[in-house]
Amino acid sequence: MSDLPAEFSLIARHFRPLAGPGALELRDDAAVLAPPAGRELVLTVDAMVAGVHFLPDDPPDLVGRKLLRVNLSDLAAKGAVPLGYLMTVSAPRGTSDEWYAGFAAGLAADQTTFGITLLGGDTTSTPGPLSLSLTAIGHVASGTAVHRFGAQAGDGVWVTGTIGDGALGLAVLQGRLADPSGWLADRYRLPQPRVGLAIAGIASAGMDVSDGLVQDLGHLCRASGVAAEIDAASVPLSPAAREAGPDWLETCLTGGDDYEVLLAVPPAREDALHAAAAEVGVVVTRIGTLSAGSPTVRVRAPDGSVGAFAKGGWSHF
Amino acid sequence: MSDLPAEFSLIARHFRPLAGPGALELRDDAAVLAPPAGRELVLTVDAMVAGVHFLPDDPPDLVGRKLLRVNLSDLAAKGAVPLGYLMTVSAPRGTSDEWYAGFAAGLAADQTTFGITLLGGDTTSTPGPLSLSLTAIGHVASGTAVHRFGAQAGDGVWVTGTIGDGALGLAVLQGRLADPSGWLADRYRLPQPRVGLAIAGIASAGMDVSDGLVQDLGHLCRASGVAAEIDAASVPLSPAAREAGPDWLETCLTGGDDYEVLLAVPPAREDALHAAAAEVGVVVTRIGTLSAGSPTVRVRAPDGSVGAFAKGGWSHF
Repeated sequence: MSDLPAEFSLIARHFRPLAGPGALELRDDAAVLAPPAGRELVLTVDAMVAGVHFLPDDPPDLVGRKLLRVNLSDLAAKGAVPLGYLMTVSAPRGTSDEWYAGFAAGLAADQTTFGITLLGGDTTSTPGPLSLSLTAIGHVASGTAVHRFGAQAGDGVWVTGTIGDGALGLAVLQGRLADPSGWLADRYRLPQPRVGLAIAGIASAGMDVSDGLVQDLGHLCRASGVAAEIDAASVPLSPAAREAGPDWLETCLTGGDDYEVLLAVPPAREDALHAAAAEVGVVVTRIGTLSAGSPTVRVRAPDGSVGAFAKGGWSHF
Repeated sequence: MSDLPAEFSLIARHFRPLAGPGALELRDDAAVLAPPAGRELVLTVDAMVAGVHFLPDDPPDLVGRKLLRVNLSDLAAKGAVPLGYLMTVSAPRGTSDEWYAGFAAGLAADQTTFGITLLGGDTTSTPGPLSLSLTAIGHVASGTAVHRFGAQAGDGVWVTGTIGDGALGLAVLQGRLADPSGWLADRYRLPQPRVGLAIAGIASAGMDVSDGLVQDLGHLCRASGVAAEIDAASVPLSPAAREAGPDWLETCLTGGDDYEVLLAVPPAREDALHAAAAEVGVVVTRIGTLSAGSPTVRVRAPDGSVGAFAKGGWSHF
């Protein structure tokens, strides 16, 4: 289905160059795909809407790259190697050719970075804001995908990279926080999915941190049937986040848009995790421990008190 | 990423019951999937926006079913057996629980009809109209997918079902045409994808008719490097479309939303096509012939004259 008069030339100019072998140059109605031998596919989808998930005047290349990267982050947290993607673009009439060119250029750059191609898509008009969806497809050795469930009491809680930059970056772009280095705004606009981190056989469970560390760890605990305690002081913060000061710590722990990987790792696999992280130049940090019990997340505050962490503020400390 | 406060309970109530084995009850960030032995996957995606692809007050169960069926139609035209789907729903705040319940009920009914399950999804809010996307996944015996390319001079041009009902149905819903039986409006609102029609090894090329018969046949001709001539009088029309009269014939041939399958079939495979169609109770009709030449579509008009068919009206006759 198509309803943009110029849809076909748009596709030819901007999206056909992104297409891979399975996509038949986007000249067919569907892509044909088989996982490599001994592998199974991992599929994930996210939608992004202008004014909700990105700012309407964000540079189009960064919008394209963010759309791709939030999905690659989901694949990375499952231990999957990305393969390709399908995409829909519902754009207001009058969206400029320059916007499409920038959007496609961002996707093209990231296709090279992550070794993937476009497999198919649909472009339509909308009377509303720009609305995007992307289905990312990766592959893992059969039976080795890392899930939210599977974590065990005694496993350590680990995260990649630094936590909180995305949420602080949004505050920067909204004029609520200074960002002399530009690091925080960049981290909000351009997630760094931890693609290539070989966590299969190392992590007992994993997911990406997109809705806020505490909330997402709660999801992992519920799926695995374990309790968690993390130490706020050990949560890795970037220099820019440290500079924001202690008033922003809560935002770092509960804000979203981190796109880091949260892992449960048995103590016996910690060396393997460090080796896998070193392989791709990613920093990993142990921030807490899982234990038997109801699936709550307890946070040790900087003052040493420990309590549950309710949405909307520190509480019960 | 999620931003609807009630997202998790929405998913639990309405979408989790739709999830299949690979989706891990939608409790994970990604689905894991392998094609059956000897098969490869076929993937397609479409977006639908309220006010563009369906009417804002269309019954929600029909919106859900149409979203699914337009994609199943693409799979059917490739000869693929549907397996599952991923979906995004970007809904205005305040979208009622009843709307979601109806939407999910429509999907559930069609999951049973077509033997598929939900593999994953994302729900977000939007300040604009309801915006949906659906990625459908099917499978074919490896190497047997039917493409737009591959048609040969001498092949017959065939279609399933009846042509034009969808476009006339939209005219009915817009108050431009009477529809005493209700057939036309139903055909617009609820496509009948020709799932199960076993065209592998029978059709030399195929695609679904979604943008209008003449335009879509033009796509097939360009992809295959052949010319087409069809006989307007042999294009199968429903009794309701015939009743609309000759003034609506152009709409039938160039309107969209048919979701029938357009096929190129070598004469030697016509018996096999009839057998495959009988197997699933689908009518197939030969409407023309492909020949060597530049990829144009010529239409023999009811008055016997033949000419090219330009978008926007009969011309060059």
